[in-house]
Formats: sequence, structure tokens, C-alpha cells
Amino acid sequence: MKLEFWFEFASTYSYLTAMRLPDEAAKRGIEVTWRPFLLGPIFAAQGLETTPFLVYPMKGRYLLRDMDRRARALGLEFYLPDTFPQNGLLAARVATAALPDPAGMRFCQNVYQAEFAHGQTIADPDVVARCAKDAGLDAEILDRAQTDPVKQALRATTEEALSRGIFGAPSFTVGDELFWGDDRLEDAFDWAAKHG
Amino acid sequence: MKLEFWFEFASTYSYLTAMRLPDEAAKRGIEVTWRPFLLGPIFAAQGLETTPFLVYPMKGRYLLRDMDRRARALGLEFYLPDTFPQNGLLAARVATAALPDPAGMRFCQNVYQAEFAHGQTIADPDVVARCAKDAGLDAEILDRAQTDPVKQALRATTEEALSRGIFGAPSFTVGDELFWGDDRLEDAFDWAAKHG
Repeated sequence: MKLEFWFEFASTYSYLTAMRLPDEAAKRGIEVTWRPFLLGPIFAAQGLETTPFLVYPMKGRYLLRDMDRRARALGLEFYLPDTFPQNGLLAARVATAALPDPAGMRFCQNVYQAEFAHGQTIADPDVVARCAKDAGLDAEILDRAQTDPVKQALRATTEEALSRGIFGAPSFTVGDELFWGDDRLEDAFDWAAKHG
Repeated sequence: MKLEFWFEFASTYSYLTAMRLPDEAAKRGIEVTWRPFLLGPIFAAQGLETTPFLVYPMKGRYLLRDMDRRARALGLEFYLPDTFPQNGLLAARVATAALPDPAGMRFCQNVYQAEFAHGQTIADPDVVARCAKDAGLDAEILDRAQTDPVKQALRATTEEALSRGIFGAPSFTVGDELFWGDDRLEDAFDWAAKHG
């Protein structure tokens, strides 16, 4: 069965998944659909004004340490941008417009690296444009990303996430089965392999 | 370096750890200190009135499903008691009085099984007394658990947890390094082995 990867560009742990997912999925022969969505409306539906990193400072401090350890274990740099969480709306629209083309996947990885390896501001159109260019996407992708059909598609994905019980990122679905967190990727793979 | 296992009897994921920890630690030759504490004051310090399971229903529904999957994978039964979260104060006092005797560890496992495998009420002194008896503890342990030195010791452990940045259960510490969640037990073991 296909695995769906639900991610938001502001999400730290989604960065870990985005970087390791293509290789891990290929190793296991599991087909993955990348589903960019927005956490803002999902948090709002739970009465959260922002990321739990900020709502619960004790937990937030720990999560940064945990992120740092896990990024290091994967050979990834991790740097929390000065502005956190970042506004990933433009990046999510570009990803929506570009996927499922493999260049769209590379774009997502570029955005995560700009944000969490280099501490750049992904709300900046210049940063997003460079991530798109480096991924091999056309120059007009940013304009296309701001058209109504793309905006509407991203809203629909976010509504679908909510309706499928998704409350955080990264999440994985295999049919109706939901997994939450980069540390559940292996469980999700096992589920997909067993119920494929 | 020694690993400290911080747990609360109301905590679902602590059940998973309590049941698998002795074998896993023995396999790796890592010495473990069991530290029962109370989550109530820890949640209150974060502005949480109760467990996140109840504060965030979408997340709570998912966590139950995740617990069920992970318990099954470990060969454990999992049943959420009708009253949740349960009041684990008496059990935590008995554990405080009985540990570090190995019978104290068995008592903790018995309490978790009564609660999450059999759905019993661990606030009930009869349930706690049977868990103590089955663990080989003296009949007078319940009385001793209600004396001032034991009550004070449990309060001190809870204050120590808070001062060490612990915000949930299960948690593991290796010196100043903190790990949170049953799914970080292996990371904690690795840290203990590397910095031992």
C-alpha cells in the first residue's frame, strides 16, 4: 500500500523525514506521496495558538536538544532559525504546484536545508526562488504557486489532513492508519509492507 | 554511566518501558535506577490541568492507537482503564518505600499490568496490596508507604524531576542528558554506553 507523507515547512522533525525518506523508501520499495499542508489551521482546531515548542517551554527546550541529537545521528546539520516557527505558506504553495514531479521533492529538501541547516528565512521569496531553481524547477513556478487553483489545492490538502485525524507533522498515513513523528517512519513502512 | 528511569503510574507509555526495561538493560549491561515521581505537579508547572491525552483529544485518540500498536509489538496487552488518568499516589509511595529492592521493581510491573492489561483501579488499596504481595513485599509496606519520610521522599523526587527539566513520563536521564518517551529508551542506552 502507498504511504502518504504529510509535512509542514515550519516543522523541525519534518526536516529529518524529508531528508531521509527518499532513500529509506527506495530501500524498502515503498511508494510515497508527498503531501505538503499547513499546521496553522490544524493547531487552531486544537486550541493551540502556535507550535507546542513555544506553548510548553520545558518541552520546547527538550525537543530542540532531541532534534539536535537526532539530526547529528543522521549526519544532518540543525540550526534553529532566529524566527521560529517560520511562515512556510509560499514554500507550501510552490511544493503543491511542483509535486509529484521529482523536482518538487528536491525543492522540499532544499527548503528544509535552507531553513534548518542554514537558518534562512523561507518566507523570503528570494530564498524560495533559489530553492526552486536549484531543484531544476522553471522560473515561473513562483507565479504559478500564487494562482487560485494552487491556493485552493493547498487548502483542500489541509482540510483533508484535519479530516483524517492529523494533528502534527510529520505524519504518515497508510490507508486509514495514522503515524505521527519522524520516529514512527519505520512503523509506517512496516505497516505499508504488511498491508500492501 | 547509570541510567535513571523516571516514571508515573498513570502514564501509559511508562507501562511499556517498565515491562521491557529490566531485560533490555541486562542485555546491554546498563545499571538502572527506578525513580517513581508524580506528573500532577509537573503538568501544573506547565499550565496543563491534566494529561495531554485529554487536553488535546485529536492527539489523545492517536496516542491510544499508537499505544495499542506498540504494546502489541511487544507482546503486551493494552486496555485503557475506564477512569483515566488514574490516581497513582499510593502506588508511587509504595514504590518509593520498596525500591531499590528488586521486589520494588516487580511491584511496579504488577501495578502497570493491573492498570493497563487488566483495567483495574490502582487507587484502590486492595489492588495495590495484591500487587505488593505478588511481588514478595511485606504486608506492612502499605503502612510504611504512608509515613512522613516516604511521603517526603516522593515529593523530593518530583521536585528533582522538575528541576532536571522533566516534563513527561517516561523520561530517562544519564547525568544531565534527558530523554523523553519509551521510544527514546534505545537512544538513552546508547548515550549511557558511550558516556559510561
